[in-house]
Amino acid sequence: MSKPSIPQGTRDFSPAEVRKRQYIFKTLQTIFELYGFQPLETPSMENLVTLTGKYGEEGDRLIFKILNNGLNAQTDEYKGKMNVEWEKMLGKPYTSTLITERALRYDLTIPFARYVVMHQNELAFPFRRYQMQPVWRADRPQKGRYREFWQCDADVVGSPSLINEAELLAIYTSAFRSFGLPVTVKINSRKLLAALAELCGLPEKMMDITIALDKLDKIGWVGVAKELQERGIGDDGIWQIEKVINVSGTNEEKMVAFADIMQHSAAGMEGINELSKTLAYYKASGQEPGREGSEIEVDISLARGLNYYTGVIVEVVCSHPDVKMGSLGGGGRYDDLTGLFGLKGLSGVGVSFGIDRIYDVMDELKLFPEQLAQGTRALLVNTGGENEAYALQLLQQLRASGIAAEIYPDAAKLDKQMKYANKRGIPFVLIAGDTERVANRVSLKNFTTGEQLLLDAAACIVAIKNQA
Amino acid sequence: MSKPSIPQGTRDFSPAEVRKRQYIFKTLQTIFELYGFQPLETPSMENLVTLTGKYGEEGDRLIFKILNNGLNAQTDEYKGKMNVEWEKMLGKPYTSTLITERALRYDLTIPFARYVVMHQNELAFPFRRYQMQPVWRADRPQKGRYREFWQCDADVVGSPSLINEAELLAIYTSAFRSFGLPVTVKINSRKLLAALAELCGLPEKMMDITIALDKLDKIGWVGVAKELQERGIGDDGIWQIEKVINVSGTNEEKMVAFADIMQHSAAGMEGINELSKTLAYYKASGQEPGREGSEIEVDISLARGLNYYTGVIVEVVCSHPDVKMGSLGGGGRYDDLTGLFGLKGLSGVGVSFGIDRIYDVMDELKLFPEQLAQGTRALLVNTGGENEAYALQLLQQLRASGIAAEIYPDAAKLDKQMKYANKRGIPFVLIAGDTERVANRVSLKNFTTGEQLLLDAAACIVAIKNQA
Repeated sequence: MSKPSIPQGTRDFSPAEVRKRQYIFKTLQTIFELYGFQPLETPSMENLVTLTGKYGEEGDRLIFKILNNGLNAQTDEYKGKMNVEWEKMLGKPYTSTLITERALRYDLTIPFARYVVMHQNELAFPFRRYQMQPVWRADRPQKGRYREFWQCDADVVGSPSLINEAELLAIYTSAFRSFGLPVTVKINSRKLLAALAELCGLPEKMMDITIALDKLDKIGWVGVAKELQERGIGDDGIWQIEKVINVSGTNEEKMVAFADIMQHSAAGMEGINELSKTLAYYKASGQEPGREGSEIEVDISLARGLNYYTGVIVEVVCSHPDVKMGSLGGGGRYDDLTGLFGLKGLSGVGVSFGIDRIYDVMDELKLFPEQLAQGTRALLVNTGGENEAYALQLLQQLRASGIAAEIYPDAAKLDKQMKYANKRGIPFVLIAGDTERVANRVSLKNFTTGEQLLLDAAACIVAIKNQA
Repeated sequence: MSKPSIPQGTRDFSPAEVRKRQYIFKTLQTIFELYGFQPLETPSMENLVTLTGKYGEEGDRLIFKILNNGLNAQTDEYKGKMNVEWEKMLGKPYTSTLITERALRYDLTIPFARYVVMHQNELAFPFRRYQMQPVWRADRPQKGRYREFWQCDADVVGSPSLINEAELLAIYTSAFRSFGLPVTVKINSRKLLAALAELCGLPEKMMDITIALDKLDKIGWVGVAKELQERGIGDDGIWQIEKVINVSGTNEEKMVAFADIMQHSAAGMEGINELSKTLAYYKASGQEPGREGSEIEVDISLARGLNYYTGVIVEVVCSHPDVKMGSLGGGGRYDDLTGLFGLKGLSGVGVSFGIDRIYDVMDELKLFPEQLAQGTRALLVNTGGENEAYALQLLQQLRASGIAAEIYPDAAKLDKQMKYANKRGIPFVLIAGDTERVANRVSLKNFTTGEQLLLDAAACIVAIKNQA
């Protein structure tokens, strides 16, 4: 028998990992609920037609498809079936019978749009939902990139108000504050990127400009300028873009400078207005708006996947000096998401948290609370015979007082049981042999201090609870 | 565009449903942790070889297989690829190239066994884990049977002690007590079923006897006797079985009667001993053992899927007179589960909770706590202009004091905003128009009482918190 394994790009989560992941989910859930977002869960499988054509050509290729039931693992069997049944029946080899009609969820946004369209008559709009579920992509696995990973999204659909953008910014900053993770939330508007193209006199080149600008962090301005040139932007255009990129200062100062440069672009002025209003709403809700080095930062080079965003876009990056890690989350406004499924005119805006990366950074910076590791607090040693019933009764008392406790199920050697407690990291061991049982007491051993005391059940419970 | 839909046998969970389901998961999680079980999560996909051959022929057919990446949805494309590449290359049509190597998890037990074998050197044995995740089966969907559904399992592996059985019984009774759901936990031993076959002088007929007995609830003794006859059990054997089935009384009385009838069967005496010890351990831990009408009941007709159980088996049924519903959970001892993956000699015992059925019964009996429905507690009406900033600042104060609150993002007509609050079931509406803003006050409308008060922010928070 070959050694069992799991598919490439998937993971088992050990108890310690599950506890830390649950801490992240629970923290986000608390914040989402506080902000009036409601939980939604959609099926792992969607009809293939729901997903196909929504993620671009590359995305379509990465969708995990599920084989229709009744078809077999081996192509020979499968092909045999084809030949015998269809080829004979149709007299020609290439039928178009489907072998798959279902696929695994690729993201949470398309299923959300599909849900909204299916339930449009029951929902109260604007509809604010959060969703924390796994998604699957047939990507080449590599460090930090998995084939099964978790997304955690909050979206509002059915309201064009920029208050929504401000609320989502506040969710970002309060979530990362809860995690103890210093971040910068970069903010931009797709309309400013459109205005840049207008400034160059090449409105149709917006995508090219965006793609080039997106690399500013990696290749610097010289590299970007070279790429802009290759993409057909003239010297004057490049100079205009450089001027915009070089604008520095507080967010307010940047907005003033942008307004000066873009005063003749309707898109540009609209984008500036959007960003200003969003920041003002954010500030009104008692949050401090972005200054240099603080949480929110207007960044005109921020691009993101532009296929469906139409307004404000955001991205979260870790600002801790020791951490090298890409985006921890992102999102933006998309004007017509549900239109894909026939419901026009509903504007949406959402943000996503990159759970796996947040986990990695928090682990690296040791930000998870220590007590998360706490599972079982007390192990009852099994000394066999009549002592078992006595130990079980003690065990029941510990649990009734809320202490997570277990008994070693077999009357094994003390040494073996101690090793077990140690390997599990259980801080207290309770030993009830004949002497203790007769005296209606128990020996409590504290692994942390090394102390051992002979106590009754009530005193034992107090001692364990006092060392939380 | 056709209306969007979801695959047959799958479900969207609305906010209210997610909250109720989370309540079930959370309740179970708290109990599992109290009993020293640790959380584990395994990937949704397993290698097909891990799953194949573990669930019987019928089970194998119900495994959802995932199409290998790079193969396409249409058989013609797929076949085209076959023809062009492989047939040409190999000069013959029926290659055995795999079209699927991965499949969706079918249950939680096999992935658990696979995990234990892969991590045997890191784990502290006995290893107690709980796992709450979806599983997928390509079954024909019908009422109460889904293609994606949740299992919730607790297992102990690496200890033959019957204390484990008793602990799992206690988990069952305390979980259903927490749910407020009256149940009977039926208990039997596979060894008693083997003894029944011995009593008939036909030890090889154990499976036949079990299958017939399993129908006792549905077809009564006359039907069972008929089926036993058809399955080749003689009159004397049937009479022996009838005598055992007719044993009544308390669990203790049943055990005495069984011991009398089965005194010459080694398997029978062993089974009786197992059940007696399990019940004694259960009682020692302060739980009341089964009497007629109470929680634990020895039931020799209990069969369950016998393919891998080897010792004690259990099943939970709802004992509420108004509820017609099959098993809400079940489990048992399996002597050599990890042997499937090459690790011999590890005994396991586990129980499973049927989340979907528990949900349905609790919903029917209205057992979910009312406050579960509580999402947003307060809606800030948006009266536009300068009042928006004032409202946002109030909103922040509500949230800072832990009240889930939202602002209507658009300055829509009051009527529309009120309708929204009503449809969402939000109990408090806060209105801050010009008058309120200038006076640094807010109008608080209580939807439940109809009362409306003009208050400052602090008084407002107190008023909302007082009506929890």
